[in-house]
Amino acid sequence: MRYELYYWPTIQGRGEFVRLALEDAGADYEDVGNQADAGITEISYYLEGQATVRPPFAPPFLKAGETVVSHVANILQFLGPRLALVPDDEQSRLWAHGLQLTLTDFVAEIHDVHHPLGASLYYEDQQAEARQRAALFLDERLPKFLGYFEQVLELNPESEACLVGVAHSYVDLSLFQVVSGLRYAFPRAMARHEEAFARVSELARRVAERPSIAAYLASSRRLPFNESGVFRHYPELDTD
Amino acid sequence: MRYELYYWPTIQGRGEFVRLALEDAGADYEDVGNQADAGITEISYYLEGQATVRPPFAPPFLKAGETVVSHVANILQFLGPRLALVPDDEQSRLWAHGLQLTLTDFVAEIHDVHHPLGASLYYEDQQAEARQRAALFLDERLPKFLGYFEQVLELNPESEACLVGVAHSYVDLSLFQVVSGLRYAFPRAMARHEEAFARVSELARRVAERPSIAAYLASSRRLPFNESGVFRHYPELDTD
Repeated sequence: MRYELYYWPTIQGRGEFVRLALEDAGADYEDVGNQADAGITEISYYLEGQATVRPPFAPPFLKAGETVVSHVANILQFLGPRLALVPDDEQSRLWAHGLQLTLTDFVAEIHDVHHPLGASLYYEDQQAEARQRAALFLDERLPKFLGYFEQVLELNPESEACLVGVAHSYVDLSLFQVVSGLRYAFPRAMARHEEAFARVSELARRVAERPSIAAYLASSRRLPFNESGVFRHYPELDTD
Repeated sequence: MRYELYYWPTIQGRGEFVRLALEDAGADYEDVGNQADAGITEISYYLEGQATVRPPFAPPFLKAGETVVSHVANILQFLGPRLALVPDDEQSRLWAHGLQLTLTDFVAEIHDVHHPLGASLYYEDQQAEARQRAALFLDERLPKFLGYFEQVLELNPESEACLVGVAHSYVDLSLFQVVSGLRYAFPRAMARHEEAFARVSELARRVAERPSIAAYLASSRRLPFNESGVFRHYPELDTD
């Protein structure tokens, strides 16, 4: 199966959670938005209902044969069994999907730190509000979310090294991506917080060392973090 | 199967999307948070990892036998086949789940209109920012989301009366709830916008007339909207 990932070019964004799963598994895929000059046009055909009568609301979406799947968590739930990135039993799959949806919520909050009033306004036009939201986010929400994943690792009776059961899963890849993005966006706050979440840090370290992930991270396919994506480094929002 | 819904008492909140599916299907369920004095304590046991080694991040979560499922979209995906509220084929289920996840994003944006800086601050302490966010939300985001669901109904080759295939599904119930909540929170803005989305309005009307839903809405189990839930009526945020 050759998968087609449809996502905006030049940013990691939410598409990166899907890329990491495809790369980890060595899957055959085309990154449509980044490959072709016509990538954005192709994405638009889907969003506008010209390419399908079941249009996605927004990228990322994945095409697998005739199947179109949208939303990161839905895509990863679809890919998980096909790429051997989730256990077989239904309870573990429901659990993995629930964890992924918690990461979805976390990512939305991370995005809204730099856009508290709305995504259509420039950051510069909501910088004062962003500072207020960032202070609350870094003091309350960031430790709450990271603390939750630390608790999940601690309580996992099968392993402290992965979130779901005994083996690496797509949720581990996504948590790695969130930790990487937070270190980029908020290096000072993460230096302050991360030692309280040693299991999460250790998981991120192990994911980065997986041969397929290490190779991907060193490749040109891994776009750098930048100030157009979800995780943005604005020093004025970061605090000790 | 007797289902147990765990959600905060006294508000519709995100639990309402699950309640509507259970009520529509006439399922046997206990609304734990609203039934027992000890409801909040029971919820806490789950969140703190005392009742399960796989703790949910937040309510709502559903218990079905030994299975615990968290996040509205995950719960509805789990219940859909069991309550005959989603078609049988995989593509339709992926599509339904994607639509539900778009509603999840919409609901999060609706919530953040009254809490743009953070959920831990009182509304009164972020009222000026809420006004700015509300103006952008009502001008841009509300028509974008409602327009998307209007497009989905228009493009559905099997029916204009429901979102997925030819029959009523859990996604229709959730869209009804969002429309109801928006009418409560922003009556003036909805009066302005709704005529552009006639199919969405018609779907909401039909859902409300389903016998099991009409009976539920008339019962004391349907908590009134209030200013502690997701959909809050603050007149100063509503505009013509």
